[in-house]
Amino acid sequence: MEKLHEECGIFGIIADRPINAAGHAAAALLSLQHRGQQSAGIVAFDGGKMIVKKDLGLVTDIFGQDFLDSCAFTHTAAGHVRYSAARENGINTTSNLSVNAQPITVSHKCAAFSLSHNGSLTNAAHLRQKIAEKGGVFYTTNDSEIVAVLIVEQCLKTHDLEKAVFNVMDAVEGAFSIIVGTEDKLVAARDKNGFRPLCMGRLNGATVFASESCALDCIGAEFVRDIAAGELVSADKSGQIITLQKDLKGVKRGLCVFEYVYFARPDSFIDGISVHAARMEMGRLLFRQKPTNADMVCGVPDSGISAAYGYAEESGIPYGSAFIKNRYVGRTFIAPTQPKREQMVGSKLSPLKASILGKRIVLVDDSIVRGTTSANIIKALRVAGAKEVHMRISSPPFKYPCYFGTDVDSRENLIANHYTVDEICRKIGADSLVYLPYKDLMNIKFGRDVGFCGGCFDGKYPIKIIH
Amino acid sequence: MEKLHEECGIFGIIADRPINAAGHAAAALLSLQHRGQQSAGIVAFDGGKMIVKKDLGLVTDIFGQDFLDSCAFTHTAAGHVRYSAARENGINTTSNLSVNAQPITVSHKCAAFSLSHNGSLTNAAHLRQKIAEKGGVFYTTNDSEIVAVLIVEQCLKTHDLEKAVFNVMDAVEGAFSIIVGTEDKLVAARDKNGFRPLCMGRLNGATVFASESCALDCIGAEFVRDIAAGELVSADKSGQIITLQKDLKGVKRGLCVFEYVYFARPDSFIDGISVHAARMEMGRLLFRQKPTNADMVCGVPDSGISAAYGYAEESGIPYGSAFIKNRYVGRTFIAPTQPKREQMVGSKLSPLKASILGKRIVLVDDSIVRGTTSANIIKALRVAGAKEVHMRISSPPFKYPCYFGTDVDSRENLIANHYTVDEICRKIGADSLVYLPYKDLMNIKFGRDVGFCGGCFDGKYPIKIIH
Amino acid sequence: MEKLHEECGIFGIIADRPINAAGHAAAALLSLQHRGQQSAGIVAFDGGKMIVKKDLGLVTDIFGQDFLDSCAFTHTAAGHVRYSAARENGINTTSNLSVNAQPITVSHKCAAFSLSHNGSLTNAAHLRQKIAEKGGVFYTTNDSEIVAVLIVEQCLKTHDLEKAVFNVMDAVEGAFSIIVGTEDKLVAARDKNGFRPLCMGRLNGATVFASESCALDCIGAEFVRDIAAGELVSADKSGQIITLQKDLKGVKRGLCVFEYVYFARPDSFIDGISVHAARMEMGRLLFRQKPTNADMVCGVPDSGISAAYGYAEESGIPYGSAFIKNRYVGRTFIAPTQPKREQMVGSKLSPLKASILGKRIVLVDDSIVRGTTSANIIKALRVAGAKEVHMRISSPPFKYPCYFGTDVDSRENLIANHYTVDEICRKIGADSLVYLPYKDLMNIKFGRDVGFCGGCFDGKYPIKIIH
Amino acid sequence: MEKLHEECGIFGIIADRPINAAGHAAAALLSLQHRGQQSAGIVAFDGGKMIVKKDLGLVTDIFGQDFLDSCAFTHTAAGHVRYSAARENGINTTSNLSVNAQPITVSHKCAAFSLSHNGSLTNAAHLRQKIAEKGGVFYTTNDSEIVAVLIVEQCLKTHDLEKAVFNVMDAVEGAFSIIVGTEDKLVAARDKNGFRPLCMGRLNGATVFASESCALDCIGAEFVRDIAAGELVSADKSGQIITLQKDLKGVKRGLCVFEYVYFARPDSFIDGISVHAARMEMGRLLFRQKPTNADMVCGVPDSGISAAYGYAEESGIPYGSAFIKNRYVGRTFIAPTQPKREQMVGSKLSPLKASILGKRIVLVDDSIVRGTTSANIIKALRVAGAKEVHMRISSPPFKYPCYFGTDVDSRENLIANHYTVDEICRKIGADSLVYLPYKDLMNIKFGRDVGFCGGCFDGKYPIKIIH
Repeated sequence: MEKLHEECGIFGIIADRPINAAGHAAAALLSLQHRGQQSAGIVAFDGGKMIVKKDLGLVTDIFGQDFLDSCAFTHTAAGHVRYSAARENGINTTSNLSVNAQPITVSHKCAAFSLSHNGSLTNAAHLRQKIAEKGGVFYTTNDSEIVAVLIVEQCLKTHDLEKAVFNVMDAVEGAFSIIVGTEDKLVAARDKNGFRPLCMGRLNGATVFASESCALDCIGAEFVRDIAAGELVSADKSGQIITLQKDLKGVKRGLCVFEYVYFARPDSFIDGISVHAARMEMGRLLFRQKPTNADMVCGVPDSGISAAYGYAEESGIPYGSAFIKNRYVGRTFIAPTQPKREQMVGSKLSPLKASILGKRIVLVDDSIVRGTTSANIIKALRVAGAKEVHMRISSPPFKYPCYFGTDVDSRENLIANHYTVDEICRKIGADSLVYLPYKDLMNIKFGRDVGFCGGCFDGKYPIKIIH
Repeated sequence: MEKLHEECGIFGIIADRPINAAGHAAAALLSLQHRGQQSAGIVAFDGGKMIVKKDLGLVTDIFGQDFLDSCAFTHTAAGHVRYSAARENGINTTSNLSVNAQPITVSHKCAAFSLSHNGSLTNAAHLRQKIAEKGGVFYTTNDSEIVAVLIVEQCLKTHDLEKAVFNVMDAVEGAFSIIVGTEDKLVAARDKNGFRPLCMGRLNGATVFASESCALDCIGAEFVRDIAAGELVSADKSGQIITLQKDLKGVKRGLCVFEYVYFARPDSFIDGISVHAARMEMGRLLFRQKPTNADMVCGVPDSGISAAYGYAEESGIPYGSAFIKNRYVGRTFIAPTQPKREQMVGSKLSPLKASILGKRIVLVDDSIVRGTTSANIIKALRVAGAKEVHMRISSPPFKYPCYFGTDVDSRENLIANHYTVDEICRKIGADSLVYLPYKDLMNIKFGRDVGFCGGCFDGKYPIKIIH
Repeated sequence: MEKLHEECGIFGIIADRPINAAGHAAAALLSLQHRGQQSAGIVAFDGGKMIVKKDLGLVTDIFGQDFLDSCAFTHTAAGHVRYSAARENGINTTSNLSVNAQPITVSHKCAAFSLSHNGSLTNAAHLRQKIAEKGGVFYTTNDSEIVAVLIVEQCLKTHDLEKAVFNVMDAVEGAFSIIVGTEDKLVAARDKNGFRPLCMGRLNGATVFASESCALDCIGAEFVRDIAAGELVSADKSGQIITLQKDLKGVKRGLCVFEYVYFARPDSFIDGISVHAARMEMGRLLFRQKPTNADMVCGVPDSGISAAYGYAEESGIPYGSAFIKNRYVGRTFIAPTQPKREQMVGSKLSPLKASILGKRIVLVDDSIVRGTTSANIIKALRVAGAKEVHMRISSPPFKYPCYFGTDVDSRENLIANHYTVDEICRKIGADSLVYLPYKDLMNIKFGRDVGFCGGCFDGKYPIKIIH
Repeated sequence: MEKLHEECGIFGIIADRPINAAGHAAAALLSLQHRGQQSAGIVAFDGGKMIVKKDLGLVTDIFGQDFLDSCAFTHTAAGHVRYSAARENGINTTSNLSVNAQPITVSHKCAAFSLSHNGSLTNAAHLRQKIAEKGGVFYTTNDSEIVAVLIVEQCLKTHDLEKAVFNVMDAVEGAFSIIVGTEDKLVAARDKNGFRPLCMGRLNGATVFASESCALDCIGAEFVRDIAAGELVSADKSGQIITLQKDLKGVKRGLCVFEYVYFARPDSFIDGISVHAARMEMGRLLFRQKPTNADMVCGVPDSGISAAYGYAEESGIPYGSAFIKNRYVGRTFIAPTQPKREQMVGSKLSPLKASILGKRIVLVDDSIVRGTTSANIIKALRVAGAKEVHMRISSPPFKYPCYFGTDVDSRENLIANHYTVDEICRKIGADSLVYLPYKDLMNIKFGRDVGFCGGCFDGKYPIKIIH
């Protein structure tokens, strides 16, 4: 899988006593780091004061011991990790800015709150224009600033934070999982389509919200339940919960199926489905789709591995490893100048010749975006002596843009838009290429009442997209 | 001089061709660094795009070669250095935040601009409330955000940036020197009282605005003139200038006299007066105030030195040095644990025994705030063998808070509020103590048509302060 | 596998033209980083000048673009990564010192050279004393300094670098794989027992030496052959090779079997044996040793994984994953203070509940040192719902110290020294525990003429150890 | 003064109880930082263990809180700051290496010690060769390594550290101020000519040695006395002192007069003479040499300032400031690309126009090396409106190389070697130029029994130089 980025991960925790809320947030954000590596932030509430720390960089770089010490007695905190999306609605502003880091902190007539947002609004330009028309001012290019303004508008009308957020859920369209933090409550809400995940847990009486359940596990919190599509859950310090639920009549459920295919961490459960189990099932279905004779099944690290286990299990072909991943390769290392070496050094993968030589290999990956990574990997396998390389993709051809919080908004770079499966197979140099059919992918629901958005595969989105 | 901080320095440059505007801004901000060491920022305009870089820290830490390279072809840039004031109007938010760094970037219906603000509004709380009442949202605790909202409001009404800023000048009260940057013009404006300095220069056809003339010198620009109190100057890329001037009838001119006493760099000229010459004159007047027999005149580094030269010149007593300043002492060095040593190590000054021993010393400083630094220095002189230490202060007793952009907003810590001159003299351990009388300080105008605010000395401010 | 550290990795490259030798060294050391993470160094030869860069830290931290640029035209370079061993022979000196970083550079009457050493001398104390007796001076606590002195002594006698190094090979006892670099040649040598690996390759006419073949792959060099035990290979710039071979009559071959079990990278070939294939075979033999009924085979990341593949293949039980490794966990991150969470956060592993729940799991690891890591992992599996956990170790009980370049020199901390297999099984909380028998481990030779040192398992070392 | 660098500063402290010796060393080295900015190091003794920390960089960068904490209970420490000299005796090795940082730690048959050395041996090449001939090995290019070998040789012969060091003082020629640290004593020694300063102090029973007395002041220690030329002083933990003194018959006393002119800190006393007082006297003598009519006397910051005070005092012309030094200019800041600006920005000095305009200025500096800095400064004064600029140099023309621990070893770059005083005056653009005559410079002894080395001025050195 290459160059496809989720936008964000969000987290919040609230307790009635000092629990080092910021420390928990930092640990949790670390477990959500796969959802965004460009910036991270935490807002901690410390009895009438917000302590804010956000910056470009990784969680481990940003939250040092100094910050954590200064937050040792915080009872409530909210956090965010971010990958800036390509489709920012800003005018004239570059996007990889520390000013765009979240959570944003907002103060207005009635109150002060922090806002952590995961998703992308499809009516952002419209909302922005409406706000601008009324004289609204924007300091960043985040959708989140739009959301903040709308929440404040509603607060002023309703004088009730829950109602305000609940009303905003009608105004915004698109992907919208948010956590609003204040001195005395934490409000989590999820759009009516339920595009992005959001769940709730408990830790010794504290209430916790997070994008994925792995963040709950990471701090030792118990998983309670997913926030439903169109639901708002508000928790106060004592642990008391208020929920509000939108009427979903006529609303298409649209949980991003790519969360299971690629984005989420295998140890997370989203809307009742284990990501790992879903990927195993994709692998099994892939084999059944076209049983293939081979000596070894390999997954492309890291995203193709779970599906490869499923393929191996179903096929009875032993699972093996074709590559070693150098865990010491940093983000800035510069290799010597021989171009042909750079590719593999850059990809951090070294072929495991002894495992590859003379073998017929089934290589499982989650998707093909541009095709260049797949081609490089297959070439490396052949150089290392693979007899056959059968590429298996645990999702259908990726053909359509996503408008709900990922960074693919143009069809130009998607190889599946320009070539047939056979052509792609030749281009990447595989002996065969099989994609998981769309209907099979939809089978991973395991009978649960979950509706997916697979718009990137079939171009059909749960809501109308205005261009 | 101890623990008194100016809030900000601002800078802007605009040309009709790529001139590495951001590089000039970085060099200029470095020369304005004494006006604020907490955060710095530059916004560069690069043909339809704003490149923003701002962070907590010093100019040399923030603007690396990467940033300067990325801005090599920028034609316009605006910058800011900041010391966060104590009197922020924010609710619930800590103030030493990177999110509060300036310039802020603003986009709205009609346009996008950057805003660099030096000063403190006395009606900020009122303006903030008015905006909040209308549903306004605040993301920071800066006064500048208020100014930005007001400018946008006026832009939407007038569809004219100059008029908009000019109108805002009527709405805001207090200290207000700003530079507004856009893709095709730079607008500089100064409040009607003229509290904070602002001047204009030229560099090969480019137009430059800066808080102090030393920033013009630093980049090789020619000084053209000061921006007048109540004046707005707008420069386009071609160098064409539009000026608008408020009617100042009934307005008291209130240039901060402390700019001359302490804040500004000695090589700057503010409103036609050389800061160095003003300090020399203060020194001369100090001697005339009470001629004193002594062997050596010393200035407390660095702020008391220019006045000490004047004192030495007028008195005929040789100027000498009583302390060595360790230029290698960093910001974080931790000395061994002996408390009595820490004071001097902390102050970075080592007494120059050979120069001090057996001498009657006139020690000149710009002001006494808490008195602890003066006491430490005088004690060190005595330990080093000074026979007499006569303290001379180049300003009157500092008794009243400042509401116009410095961090003294409470009278509690001001020693002159609690003790008479004689008592202060005893407390700091001096043989005699003379302050420059208020009317003498006002004499440093050299006949120019400049009116000072000396509110920190006499409690009389040019405008009404609403508490 | 816990807290067992290899000491060093070494590398050298020599060409007759500028090939950015230092750049190749940096890339190669990165692929040898698993052999030592405490310090790294490169010496580059640039026509009469040695450019030295060495420091504490990881390869990616130490060799920045500045250094690589300054070495762009170097033709020869030698490098080193190091984990400081516990058993340093120094008097009075702490060992984690940048001064101990290698390669060391040596100049004497006849020449100047760099020395990269992997291994630990068993007669170091004796040699050190002999040198000291003659008035020798030591600046570090490295064995390598002893080796350097001996080489110089021999150089002065023989006036021939190859002969000098060849003679030193008789004086030193223990593990001794070295690369000596000079302006015009590179000399690689391996002790008579062949404890530590060393191999040779070619890259477009340049000659390359490295601890493991993965370093050759990494820079695109072709593997030529292993350096034999007791062999010295000298390469000049033109690629001409001189070899000298010790008579090995009566010498026991003693390649460290733990290189296959744990130290080396799976994609390396050492003395003709693929590390990955060896581990697969260990896994197969483990199953045959005691066939066990289970639902899933898992390897403890990363070192138990290859053997687990072999176990799965042989048993027909599907391979699966029980843990997710957080690739963003840095070296300094501090988790919140709940003790029970720290263990797992510290170990960077999150249990994959969906994969574990209700399963009988065979868990394969390479060894058990103290037992605490195994106990933590098994407990986490049980908490995640594992029905049974059968621990399988791809090596015999680790009972004896190693004197040949690892950091285990005391039997106190080795759990297998204090408890029987049954007791260990109970202590780590497994349902069953099987170690690979010693004779089976020795079977991984695949018929090759290789003799192993398995002293850590049976206490029998190829050479006499003087305590 | 431009680009002339002292090589080193040294420090040691010993007590009979834990006094955070390393913390005192760090504070003291900070006050000696002007003697060397390339590397710094501290060796602390902690009851049988040496804790070593040394690196390239400034004192404040190298000794962090972690190190200081780890040394909190050390009773003895020795330190070093270093500027690597140009004239290293190394073969084939670059010199700006962390491996060359001092103190070096040495262990041999009898003991372990640290060595801090200030100076440059004139017979280093000879000694190095002799050692090499006997098979000696060198790992660095420091003279100090030679000294270490000699000390060990003598230790082995005499079994007495004091005698060993005392014997070495006969073998070495040139500048040689050293501090040898061991677990239970500190030995300080100074060469027979007394080229470089060295003094002793006391701090609550602890014994302290330092290059300059300012380091004693800095930690609150009392100055006891200078170490005499040819003297060795050994202090044990209890504070007991042993001294050994060479017979100085026929030895020319050769204290570097440039220590007074430029190197040392003004607040230091060296061999009984105040550096500040000496510079004041140079200024007075300069005026008497050629009384000149002017309006203001200025010193070039920082090294010309003390002499300028003396000139002002003697002449009655007021002292004033012509430049502002930007204390925020860091070491890496890059100014915009206009070449003509770079000079002044680089020099960190901004002309103080108001002070300069229309004035006849006497500009005092300590020396002229290449002449470019003087030319730049004088040009800046003229641009700022100076009517006349009379350059006064507080030392004679600098014409000859120094062999005793500074980085000028070639006559090529010395402007005084190529031009007459009149020519230099024209080249630097001054209206007049007066150097302090050699015999006047020698007058600064104030009657003390001190003999100077002024070899850089007259080419006559106290000892024979072998080229």
